[in-house]
Amino acid sequence: MRILGIDPGTAIMGFGLIEKNGNKLTVLDYGCWRTGADLSAADRLLALYNTLSDFLSIHHPDHLAVESLFFNSNVKTALTVGQARGVVLLAGAQKECRIAEYTPLQVKQAVVGYGKADKKQVQFMVRALLGLSVVPQPDDAADALAVAICHGHCCRSGTVGECAGV
Amino acid sequence: MRILGIDPGTAIMGFGLIEKNGNKLTVLDYGCWRTGADLSAADRLLALYNTLSDFLSIHHPDHLAVESLFFNSNVKTALTVGQARGVVLLAGAQKECRIAEYTPLQVKQAVVGYGKADKKQVQFMVRALLGLSVVPQPDDAADALAVAICHGHCCRSGTVGECAGV
Repeated sequence: MRILGIDPGTAIMGFGLIEKNGNKLTVLDYGCWRTGADLSAADRLLALYNTLSDFLSIHHPDHLAVESLFFNSNVKTALTVGQARGVVLLAGAQKECRIAEYTPLQVKQAVVGYGKADKKQVQFMVRALLGLSVVPQPDDAADALAVAICHGHCCRSGTVGECAGV
Repeated sequence: MRILGIDPGTAIMGFGLIEKNGNKLTVLDYGCWRTGADLSAADRLLALYNTLSDFLSIHHPDHLAVESLFFNSNVKTALTVGQARGVVLLAGAQKECRIAEYTPLQVKQAVVGYGKADKKQVQFMVRALLGLSVVPQPDDAADALAVAICHGHCCRSGTVGECAGV
């Protein structure tokens, strides 16, 4: 089963593609897509949509796992991240991916076993669980891998339905 | 010049298409697109995207004017509306529309001349300015026509650049 994790954003969008065979998770690709600050919001979304759609066509993930927002985020951030998430959900639906959404709390619980884990702990566990020699950079890529791992664990434990599927 | 105003939302999206010739505004079409509550968020966005893309292909608006959010909205609303806005901006960018964004305050000032006007006053002026025999229904359609009128006025007065183009 192939899972693409996405940490959505308009300026930078993290992605992490993993393969799940039984209990084994293998990383296939990760990184981030950036858009120029000189572009309009609409053109940034268009660039991200085109890049993500091409990525989905090439790699055919079965599942798309998307990080949702901290509840203490502000309205402006929520609107901007929401716009990027909208484009991600659309691209996933067009490619008929199964789509699930996880809060940062759920991701931390699944990856570290502790919902209040800090960023360094999450990154350490992402590296360990995927058998990587270095911590994935940038942070957005590590976050995207973390949400993909979270989805892999939820599928294993049969708790996907509880994991705020969208 | 043809302007499509959009009041974005996932459950219901208002639209209002007007033609501007000199100082004269004429309504061409208005209404709303609804998505079923039984659909996932991703499938709702896909349905809206397909409908809007088809509408843009048929009617070829030159400009897309989108209502932005009240600053006092909550984070959950902002995220949901943001997702719908993301899909609208994407569809507009794909069709190479010029895209502008207006706050509710800007819309009220442009349509009623008073930023604290209530919904009834806005609807009254939308009806009057477009020479309609009835107030457009539902409210989302009237709001979409209002943002289209706002853009028409800003284009006339040459203040589009000040109107938070996205």
